[in-house]
Amino acid sequence: MNYLARIYVTPKPGVVDPQGLSILGGLRNLGYDSVVGVRAGRYLEIQLGEAASSEDAETRARDMCRQLLANPVIEDFHFEVTESGQAANVDR
Amino acid sequence: MNYLARIYVTPKPGVVDPQGLSILGGLRNLGYDSVVGVRAGRYLEIQLGEAASSEDAETRARDMCRQLLANPVIEDFHFEVTESGQAANVDR
Repeated sequence: MNYLARIYVTPKPGVVDPQGLSILGGLRNLGYDSVVGVRAGRYLEIQLGEAASSEDAETRARDMCRQLLANPVIEDFHFEVTESGQAANVDR
Repeated sequence: MNYLARIYVTPKPGVVDPQGLSILGGLRNLGYDSVVGVRAGRYLEIQLGEAASSEDAETRARDMCRQLLANPVIEDFHFEVTESGQAANVDR
């Protein structure tokens, strides 16, 4: 079975987030005065390919986050793994 | 009621995604040979503040995406809006 991981990487609470502050400023300039905070992170869709089980796919996704996708000093991550029935799209 | 929007911005299918390709190369170099594709997008958490209803909050989030957060030429977006019981955290 092929699996797809959806990975969300966010700045840890308390870590300064310049991109989020910049977006907050942009929204306020557009008149969205009620917005009180923005945190900017990354969203990744990873076609994991073949895995023996969803537990195996989850382990692999977690390892990828720890090794490459998230900076553990300043970022948190969470993810979901789902079965990906179709053949991998070369665009993705 | 205060609302929180979780916004996901992804490159449209067919659009070249250099960041995703770079991450794919990095994962392969680390030995994750089964990975067949990576798409890199953005994940935003926006404390919308007060809104009259969840429909009102959703409309506001959609307008923000169209006006500032996503580039409609090359990006898609989707979002969820949830009630945010606690007072806005100044970190977020």
